[in-house]
Amino acid sequence: MNQYIYGVDVGGTFIKIGLFSKQCNILIDKKEIPTPKNNHKKSIFAAILSEIKAFNTKHDICMDNILGIGLAIPCPTKNGYVSQCANLDFCEFDLVENFKKILPKHLIVKVGNDASLATLGESKSLDKTYESIVMFTLGTGVGGGIILNSKIIEGKTGLGGEIGHIKVYETNETCGCGAHGCLEQICGTKGILSFAKKQKQELGSILEEHFTVKDVFDAAKNNDQASINTVNRVAKYLASAAVNLAITIEPEIFILGGGISKAGNYFLDKIKEYYQANARFNTRDIPFILASTGNDAGMIGAFYYVSEYLT
Amino acid sequence: MNQYIYGVDVGGTFIKIGLFSKQCNILIDKKEIPTPKNNHKKSIFAAILSEIKAFNTKHDICMDNILGIGLAIPCPTKNGYVSQCANLDFCEFDLVENFKKILPKHLIVKVGNDASLATLGESKSLDKTYESIVMFTLGTGVGGGIILNSKIIEGKTGLGGEIGHIKVYETNETCGCGAHGCLEQICGTKGILSFAKKQKQELGSILEEHFTVKDVFDAAKNNDQASINTVNRVAKYLASAAVNLAITIEPEIFILGGGISKAGNYFLDKIKEYYQANARFNTRDIPFILASTGNDAGMIGAFYYVSEYLT
Repeated sequence: MNQYIYGVDVGGTFIKIGLFSKQCNILIDKKEIPTPKNNHKKSIFAAILSEIKAFNTKHDICMDNILGIGLAIPCPTKNGYVSQCANLDFCEFDLVENFKKILPKHLIVKVGNDASLATLGESKSLDKTYESIVMFTLGTGVGGGIILNSKIIEGKTGLGGEIGHIKVYETNETCGCGAHGCLEQICGTKGILSFAKKQKQELGSILEEHFTVKDVFDAAKNNDQASINTVNRVAKYLASAAVNLAITIEPEIFILGGGISKAGNYFLDKIKEYYQANARFNTRDIPFILASTGNDAGMIGAFYYVSEYLT
Repeated sequence: MNQYIYGVDVGGTFIKIGLFSKQCNILIDKKEIPTPKNNHKKSIFAAILSEIKAFNTKHDICMDNILGIGLAIPCPTKNGYVSQCANLDFCEFDLVENFKKILPKHLIVKVGNDASLATLGESKSLDKTYESIVMFTLGTGVGGGIILNSKIIEGKTGLGGEIGHIKVYETNETCGCGAHGCLEQICGTKGILSFAKKQKQELGSILEEHFTVKDVFDAAKNNDQASINTVNRVAKYLASAAVNLAITIEPEIFILGGGISKAGNYFLDKIKEYYQANARFNTRDIPFILASTGNDAGMIGAFYYVSEYLT
């Protein structure tokens, strides 16, 4: 009998739903739908369930053969409970218990933070099995996931893996989290664009008046000094956070994911250079790689998260 | 039938050996012997075995009733293997395999880092069970232990928990580890005495010409400004490291151990003050407590480390 699991990545803008074969660990089909705008505590569950029913019909699958549903959500989560969420109206809410209420009783529901589950998803795409991984997700914000002894580190209330808020420098400017000197202030979109703008004013640049983070990386590759300085700064402080993580939890591997990581080996090599100049003892040898599963990582991780509870 | 376990804490100067009842989880007897000075790869095992035999005779215990031996050692260790050790001649050495060679075959041997096992030992002395703990051990150096999901975080090669080498400030002065700006440079004995000396020169002080770390804390409690500034600096940067650990692994509790922690609640309250001013979201609520098992923590942890493998 074939058995299936749904992996779902709930984002602020889109929800990605993937149908996976439990036996073969493969993605059979996937779909992206807009995230409902209001009444998240009900509307998101309803939208997901509706898509699952449609998938089942399309693939001629009986609900009895669905074993579970994994949800990746953009909030800190602890055992499926969300105490606070900046992106969706899930505050003080038990997603597992509430989702189960509208699902057939046999279904297992597991919920995890999207960056943590993306880390799990990425780890499963690697040729080698790693028990301990740190992934940085670089985008508008800087997030991440930590897996140690093969378990996602959720932390006491779900804040495990919030590595964008490691303090890496002294500044009077305030981060969105309220602190000063967070990694995200340098490596998030806003920080990169702001620093590049100042460098452009100071040094001149091939960057046009309105530019994106991708433009900065492209210009750096074309030897634009203002952009090179900006990319070096991002690489330096990302490496600095990695050095501190290495000496505290010493993962087997660092993975670089998220939009900015598309800058590829040019960026990765700079990070490695700063890292190796500052890491100590055996931690110097920890490899850095680029994420490879792209936007599906959270959905894939959500599948594996449930799958691990079923073995 | 009564069953027993030995917990052994191998330090650079002394070896502490404790005989524990497996059934009752209690320390029956303990002894401290000097650490052999030479040929550590053989002499330390021989010294421990000799004391174990003497304990067995004293308490009329047959070796068949000893289930295992736990060793806490002052080096990074991974599954009992030590690749480098500053304190003992254990470099590139498998302690478990080599100790087993001279022991009866039925004995289980487990080896862990002393600060990590002290963390485990401390955790077992608490009224509540915690799955995730970070302990700072403050002394000549600054070390620590991290337990997450009830497992010691050894790291890829044993460097997990080396929280004294988290970078917390900018400086040109070099740490013993080769980096610049480590927590240990501020919170280790050398850093404290050096800063207090400068403060004394600048502000005057009730501190005498030759003073200890304890003198600095005592003088601070007596309103000596140079000493207050020194203690505040230690508390501030310790809190800064804790803030970064909280936002990455979010433990349930922070424990403060080691010699300096004897400064007690006066010191702990200062750390908490800086911590709460800088921690974010739910991490503000993570409690800080003082270690309570004192110098026996490593030995007790070594016992529990073996004990957990036997349940």
